[in-house]
Amino acid sequence: MCQGFQAAGIHAGIKKNNIKDLGLIVSDVPAAVAGVFTKNQIKAAPVLLDMERIQSGTCRAVIANSGNANCCNGERGMEDAVRMAKAVAEKLGVPEEMVLVSSTGVIGQPLPVETIESGIPQLFDALTPDGFSDFAESIMTTDTKPKKLSRTVEVGKKSFFITGIAKGAGMIRPDMATMLCYVCTDVEADSSVLKELLTDAVNLSLSRIHIDGDTSTNDTVLILANGMSGLSLNDAPVRDVFKDALEGMLIELARMVVKDGEGVTKLVEIKINGAASDDDAEKMADTVAHSSLVKTAFFGEDANWGRIIGALGRAGVSLNQDTIDISFNDIMLVKNGLWCGADAEVKATKVMKLSDFAVKIDVHLGTGTASCWTCDFSIDYVKINADYRS
Amino acid sequence: MCQGFQAAGIHAGIKKNNIKDLGLIVSDVPAAVAGVFTKNQIKAAPVLLDMERIQSGTCRAVIANSGNANCCNGERGMEDAVRMAKAVAEKLGVPEEMVLVSSTGVIGQPLPVETIESGIPQLFDALTPDGFSDFAESIMTTDTKPKKLSRTVEVGKKSFFITGIAKGAGMIRPDMATMLCYVCTDVEADSSVLKELLTDAVNLSLSRIHIDGDTSTNDTVLILANGMSGLSLNDAPVRDVFKDALEGMLIELARMVVKDGEGVTKLVEIKINGAASDDDAEKMADTVAHSSLVKTAFFGEDANWGRIIGALGRAGVSLNQDTIDISFNDIMLVKNGLWCGADAEVKATKVMKLSDFAVKIDVHLGTGTASCWTCDFSIDYVKINADYRS
Repeated sequence: MCQGFQAAGIHAGIKKNNIKDLGLIVSDVPAAVAGVFTKNQIKAAPVLLDMERIQSGTCRAVIANSGNANCCNGERGMEDAVRMAKAVAEKLGVPEEMVLVSSTGVIGQPLPVETIESGIPQLFDALTPDGFSDFAESIMTTDTKPKKLSRTVEVGKKSFFITGIAKGAGMIRPDMATMLCYVCTDVEADSSVLKELLTDAVNLSLSRIHIDGDTSTNDTVLILANGMSGLSLNDAPVRDVFKDALEGMLIELARMVVKDGEGVTKLVEIKINGAASDDDAEKMADTVAHSSLVKTAFFGEDANWGRIIGALGRAGVSLNQDTIDISFNDIMLVKNGLWCGADAEVKATKVMKLSDFAVKIDVHLGTGTASCWTCDFSIDYVKINADYRS
Repeated sequence: MCQGFQAAGIHAGIKKNNIKDLGLIVSDVPAAVAGVFTKNQIKAAPVLLDMERIQSGTCRAVIANSGNANCCNGERGMEDAVRMAKAVAEKLGVPEEMVLVSSTGVIGQPLPVETIESGIPQLFDALTPDGFSDFAESIMTTDTKPKKLSRTVEVGKKSFFITGIAKGAGMIRPDMATMLCYVCTDVEADSSVLKELLTDAVNLSLSRIHIDGDTSTNDTVLILANGMSGLSLNDAPVRDVFKDALEGMLIELARMVVKDGEGVTKLVEIKINGAASDDDAEKMADTVAHSSLVKTAFFGEDANWGRIIGALGRAGVSLNQDTIDISFNDIMLVKNGLWCGADAEVKATKVMKLSDFAVKIDVHLGTGTASCWTCDFSIDYVKINADYRS
């Protein structure tokens, strides 16, 4: 249990069928805060508000709703975001700037802010230290399951706690993790250190995943650290342990997001080795991970390596087709750009039947490496997204 | 009928079920030739061979097969491409360098070159001035119909003829048209002029279409001009008329390729106006055209403009969300970044039920414009590509 934090998730009435749609996280004391936000130039009102408010380095609460992204709603959108935060601030008796806001759902429809305001009393009644699971449910959109991880991490004889919650499902590509994600911890931290650690961890995790290549207007990752464990990030050993814990947690959450992506049946890691540079490796990994043809072949469990080579060739980096090796887990299917034969293909096809496997590509040009996680592109992805608003 | 050209398409045995898989175009006299080829760094053997042979500026014949891309087959791939051409050259009694080669189909499986060689006599027997329809059939892969256009174009009292054949269906994105396309004409031309006109026309047509965002390893557009009409491109009026005819034909072929894309039910033109530059406009058009979320919404006939705005925002160009207008044909759904309301949405949704419509976006920042053609992303696209090799 994360000392000094409480959370809740309720059905306020934004969504139909009694589904949870409003969540709250409260820190008993002011928490250091840091965030990373969407790189999309079109940013939803709550993102713009949070980007401003986070400058102070401190916050007390985060309110989040699903069912409506509060994006492209003009001035009214910003007014509504402010109203959501204000309702929480009044109840807590803190300045409204101490409350952050997230929204996720359909773009371009006015936020039902009265519905949210009228849900606030019930939301506060539901607050409990065990409320993070409900919170995780309340921010789901097309996610099929809530995503929450909690860990107690020991440093010498003491320990700190860290909880992470995420939602994903669609509009996911690198350039940062396209989703909502919240991390609460009871370590003590300066917001600047928190920002640095969060940015590094996001770059290794939430920014390395692909579902459909679209970037949302509402991406937000926030970390709140309230210091109640008595352990401080100013202490080097604590900081090292915390860094590992945060990275590990965000990588696991990132994998959970991809695995629960819209229509996803397979989680596939794309690993590039031997690129001329890490940057080149990243371009190659991302291009393969984003190829519709590669992803439909994953869905079809077809070891169609020609599509992988085709994607590598359009990644915008120099390449020698005679030095490319491609393996599915440990089964090498392509050696020096050539097919390893029917036996290897039978084995590689068997690997593709797993729900979680790696495609390892070595281009033998240098020492650059990169990896990312992607998924298959299924009939259900299309079904989900053709009917999303109906 | 294109004077001095003959064509044929037969079933040689590369594909099953008696489907045509081998095609030939022959010019009775040496023809000026120009080509544009895939920008994918991984190029199939026939592409590499043609890029070399086309330097001479002249050719007599083109042989093309479907069912196998002859790509990533190492040295053997190049040997087989040379053998295909040689078999034709021997039959014609011309140097083998005068024959060009194309292949399309699965990557990474050895070309059944003996099957092709043994089909050559039958292929020559089938040659006729009316054989272009058979040729168009013989290069189809997942295309559902052959794509061929023929026009007689008058210049004063004389006329020339122009025939275009294309195949597409998958692995289609700009950067050049990802397909095979052949144009035969009886004008007289220098290959350098031909190259210039072809490049310009491709940039307006085959390079402005999207199906799935993947770039093939085998893209080839060739134009052959044998001069038999007696009209010459060195004559300015002829050149002007020819330029228009070529552009018009390639735009129509490009639209046919998108319309017959894998699983496609809708052809959608994305038109950008008011961008800071043409380059910015092109980036925006391409990002919208390539967005899986936008394309699945087209399939679902859902005027989900939030996804269009989301795509604009990640196009890598500067943007003001308060000045964006979006229309579906002539129905304005978004004005100054805001939804025009339920009435407009009902009308826009009606437009989306058409099989062919335009999404017009004005960002009101400058005078830059661009357009491209895309399609919806359907359940059948996934089905086709999950099972492509089985």
